[in-house]
Amino acid sequence: MTKPIAIQGIKGSFHHEVVQHYFNDSAAVEECMSFDGVIESLLEGSSDEIVMAIENSIAGSIIPNYALIDNNNLNIVGEYYLDIQHHLMALPGQSIADISEVHSHPMALLQCKMFLKDLPHIKLVEARDTAEVAKQIAEKNVKHIAAIASKKAAELYKLSVLAESIQTIKHNETRFVIVKRETENNDFTRMDKASLKFVLDHKRGSLATILNVLSDCKLNLTKIQSLPIMDTPWKYAFFVDVTFKDYKDYSKAKSLMEIMAENFKVLGEYKNARL
Amino acid sequence: MTKPIAIQGIKGSFHHEVVQHYFNDSAAVEECMSFDGVIESLLEGSSDEIVMAIENSIAGSIIPNYALIDNNNLNIVGEYYLDIQHHLMALPGQSIADISEVHSHPMALLQCKMFLKDLPHIKLVEARDTAEVAKQIAEKNVKHIAAIASKKAAELYKLSVLAESIQTIKHNETRFVIVKRETENNDFTRMDKASLKFVLDHKRGSLATILNVLSDCKLNLTKIQSLPIMDTPWKYAFFVDVTFKDYKDYSKAKSLMEIMAENFKVLGEYKNARL
Repeated sequence: MTKPIAIQGIKGSFHHEVVQHYFNDSAAVEECMSFDGVIESLLEGSSDEIVMAIENSIAGSIIPNYALIDNNNLNIVGEYYLDIQHHLMALPGQSIADISEVHSHPMALLQCKMFLKDLPHIKLVEARDTAEVAKQIAEKNVKHIAAIASKKAAELYKLSVLAESIQTIKHNETRFVIVKRETENNDFTRMDKASLKFVLDHKRGSLATILNVLSDCKLNLTKIQSLPIMDTPWKYAFFVDVTFKDYKDYSKAKSLMEIMAENFKVLGEYKNARL
Repeated sequence: MTKPIAIQGIKGSFHHEVVQHYFNDSAAVEECMSFDGVIESLLEGSSDEIVMAIENSIAGSIIPNYALIDNNNLNIVGEYYLDIQHHLMALPGQSIADISEVHSHPMALLQCKMFLKDLPHIKLVEARDTAEVAKQIAEKNVKHIAAIASKKAAELYKLSVLAESIQTIKHNETRFVIVKRETENNDFTRMDKASLKFVLDHKRGSLATILNVLSDCKLNLTKIQSLPIMDTPWKYAFFVDVTFKDYKDYSKAKSLMEIMAENFKVLGEYKNARL
């Protein structure tokens, strides 16, 4: 029997939605209450695969999740982009005028800031998971509190949607990665994207030199992020994502980077979900 | 009379500490309960200057704060690095065994994750501001709840420190920026750092070309961050910080980048606080 896929949040959460799209609608999930919990599930072997948000349009990279993958030497084996639509929902029969508090995940509250600004009588309360609030409202029959969550959560917990797509940015994509303990069986031909990490000295032109190599090897950069290394002044870690047409080009770049950069590390090689 | 400096949080918060270091110990502050509130204070003119956290060692860049500066066309006029030490504090007479809940800002809770993991009987509750929790505990004489906040907060609100420097990374720096509506009087000679934003096509080598220009003009890169542009596939915005010895070199790079990149924008020119 296959093991469940560990996610942060419960059924009806956006992580659950990604599992349904990437695997299939009936894929079993293990509901964890934190990203640390998700990683623990993978390390202890109660799951063999996890789904984790890694960047979104408002907050950028979720650096703590990068750190979890990096520090535990895990492997990114796939990615998925979900267009996140937030809906305001409450018990059937409640209207917006009845609502005095909205509970949701801090990121959801942030993404719906403009909508909520127009409702100053509503108090905002941070919660661990978008879907969990919806579930609580339904199970405990809670009036006057609304959730911000997905349409799936509204369906699953039988809440009525008071306002649709209330997020400020209408096309609101979050990138999720699928992570395993080990690399997948290496079918290089289907891979056209990689997540890399390397360290450089704070020396003029050091990053430009590396990027020239990537460009010479026909690699495209889809993401770059520098992070100062704690307790090591003037050293920076870089997280980059590259796409490529031919694995051989990428392979050549990899050999060069191993020589040119310190602590060069492949966080994952996988299929680009953006094609 | 000079106007107060707007900060997120209250007296005793880390933002307040930065104001005391950057300006002086007795500089008046306007206590705001959100970064949006801080920006509003500046835009409405109740303050002429604000202090805002912009990146830290765990979460990386605080992209929403970058967006606030960028979207409101504000100017970074200075920076300050604060080594953030978190302390666990409660009413005098309380010991760790008496504590059942710790309330603090989500970032503080995240930064003290390892310490808190060893105290599984303590429930973690997210709050808006580190110092505000300390103040509430003191004013309302709240037992069994501890705050995670600065030494200043413990002194100010007369709490006892139960555990010192409980953050996971011992040298835990956060970078703050000082922001105004307009640029400062332009004393170019004292400026040696700039924060820039530009847009590039997702074309092989486009970023390498720009970084080559920066390097040729003797500019050092201290930070780089890409962000996909919403609703414009294959275009990326880049936020970079550069340092330089001679303003003329920087000025030349600026002229070149205006030609080579789209939407080139200077978010601020100021004195590097890291020298």
